Amino acid sequence: MTRILLYLTAGLTLAAQNVVSPEVAADGRVTFRLAAPKAADVLFYGDWMPVGTSKPMAKGANGVWSITTEPLTPSVYIYHFVVDGVTMADPVNPRMKLRARTSASLLEVPGDGNAVWQARNVPHGTVEINYQKSKVLNGETRWVWIYTPPGYAASGSRKFPVLYLFHGSNDTAGGWVLAGHANFILDNLIAEKKAEPMIVVMPFGHAVPFGSPRELQAKNVDVYEQYLLEDVMPMVRAKYRIAGTRAKTAIAGLSMGGGQSLGIGMKHLDLFSAIGSFSAAVPQGLENNIEALKKANPLLWVACGKEDSLFQRSADLAAKLKAAGVNHTWQATPGAHTYTVWRQYLAEFAPLLFH
Amino acid sequence: MTRILLYLTAGLTLAAQNVVSPEVAADGRVTFRLAAPKAADVLFYGDWMPVGTSKPMAKGANGVWSITTEPLTPSVYIYHFVVDGVTMADPVNPRMKLRARTSASLLEVPGDGNAVWQARNVPHGTVEINYQKSKVLNGETRWVWIYTPPGYAASGSRKFPVLYLFHGSNDTAGGWVLAGHANFILDNLIAEKKAEPMIVVMPFGHAVPFGSPRELQAKNVDVYEQYLLEDVMPMVRAKYRIAGTRAKTAIAGLSMGGGQSLGIGMKHLDLFSAIGSFSAAVPQGLENNIEALKKANPLLWVACGKEDSLFQRSADLAAKLKAAGVNHTWQATPGAHTYTVWRQYLAEFAPLLFH
Repeated sequence: MTRILLYLTAGLTLAAQNVVSPEVAADGRVTFRLAAPKAADVLFYGDWMPVGTSKPMAKGANGVWSITTEPLTPSVYIYHFVVDGVTMADPVNPRMKLRARTSASLLEVPGDGNAVWQARNVPHGTVEINYQKSKVLNGETRWVWIYTPPGYAASGSRKFPVLYLFHGSNDTAGGWVLAGHANFILDNLIAEKKAEPMIVVMPFGHAVPFGSPRELQAKNVDVYEQYLLEDVMPMVRAKYRIAGTRAKTAIAGLSMGGGQSLGIGMKHLDLFSAIGSFSAAVPQGLENNIEALKKANPLLWVACGKEDSLFQRSADLAAKLKAAGVNHTWQATPGAHTYTVWRQYLAEFAPLLFH
Repeated sequence: MTRILLYLTAGLTLAAQNVVSPEVAADGRVTFRLAAPKAADVLFYGDWMPVGTSKPMAKGANGVWSITTEPLTPSVYIYHFVVDGVTMADPVNPRMKLRARTSASLLEVPGDGNAVWQARNVPHGTVEINYQKSKVLNGETRWVWIYTPPGYAASGSRKFPVLYLFHGSNDTAGGWVLAGHANFILDNLIAEKKAEPMIVVMPFGHAVPFGSPRELQAKNVDVYEQYLLEDVMPMVRAKYRIAGTRAKTAIAGLSMGGGQSLGIGMKHLDLFSAIGSFSAAVPQGLENNIEALKKANPLLWVACGKEDSLFQRSADLAAKLKAAGVNHTWQATPGAHTYTVWRQYLAEFAPLLFH
């Protein structure tokens, strides 16, 4: 036992071993703790707080810093510490928010366990990690996360509609599952017969390296479009039982991925019958698609939180669509630029699809 | 663009944004960097170094600490920083080593790209994350990572052998994929016809909470055995096309998981025809199974690195097996308690299975 413990605790101080963080109280208050006896200054940031702000943590006599929040609405949140200027995930919390750079930690405030993003007692779909050597991306092997609905493996020759679902900047192909709980949201909607059983395809959205110089970064949407159309979509057609028609194919995304879904979706209205834009980084030049949109008349669903600094870009898009007489839905909702908002958007958008 | 950058960089200092870490040179030397201008002392640990040691990092004029290694053998390694006593992952490296507690970072030294654990230009299997509400574990929803071999979805009614493959203490169900590259190892062996196409089932090995008090922790093997037999194995039988016979079912694991595979495998010789023990935390009392082992005569494969502090436990087990006349293989290899060793063990063990 002693020798096993050596491996368990390698690199950890005794204080860090005993720290509990995060700790969620019954009333929804959450306490975060960090053992950092030598630190002079420890700050806390959680994504329910305004972007760019932080709160000081208090140092205890044992060298453990802590902070307790007000009661939080049940959700999955993202947070990090800043220890003497160094941004870090919570070292004792196993739930990581993986990112393209600078990972953080996840906090779940469970509430009654019956929210649409939680694992209810319903049949669960499967999240499949597909590895693919990309022709477009110079032979790089990339993963694509793909949700298949409950019963997919045993459903014989039945074919399913497909939602291509994109994450935001500085996120990963797993973001919509690990932080967004897209799989549980679909499980729950399907169990309640509120959404069609569907396949959800989640590629990695950084076709050029994350953090590239501005000129290269500007090419990301075009390279990603080519990667999606020439690598990802052919793999999905070859491997999964999909309907494959325009009526049964949708595209949506959040933030950067919302911009990608608008740009690619409007450019390929022959492929996609529905476009979802969640708190999007709305690209320039979408007005060039107005006539095509009126002709193809896709389901076009645009939403953004009023506390989101990107709000005006979605509001401007919605105003242009309205002025031009393009059918669309525009939802100006409460909330900021967080997965708490995006989980709700997916739960509202998915039931509209594939009828 | 400016508003997008706000989200990309929230919480990051300018120095941290520009840091490159890790950086692998052509000769295999690796440089690690951390922006920590206010830190007084920054240490580095990588799992190619002896357990319990560390090396000091040097502070540059810009507040960025760094260290450069000697040339490293191509592999995937695990490392972390200790900043004024606080253990942390590399904040700018997206590849995390997820753990039950205290995540760290992964470093890949690629070499020529043709190692058995690398994504070669061969057909890839799929890694499927299954979510299951566990009856044994009081209704907790757990994930089980399952590798299906290339072509599985299109293989009609063909049935496959199954390897149950367990991770070590303070790891996760994804460890054998994300750090162990078990999927790429199987892909490569299958492409070379060195291993049978097989399904690999990877559950989460902590049936009682990680870090439980010693009395509860001692129950982990028994509760995990029940979880495996009553939740995981029935799900696998119901959902996947498996042969299901003893001849086509194997069990193996590393460290804690090696102990689990020895304990559960020897107790259920009617279910498993092969047992793999990789650097195992060998449990007490295995000698009670000697007569049953001689009768059932499973493929019993025991290996441990000579620099592993657990080495003597495997050596003692092998000596007992030999003295009792139980057929087995005993491999005392170079190496310590690391995935560098375990990837090699899997690459040696898998080809022996299911003939």
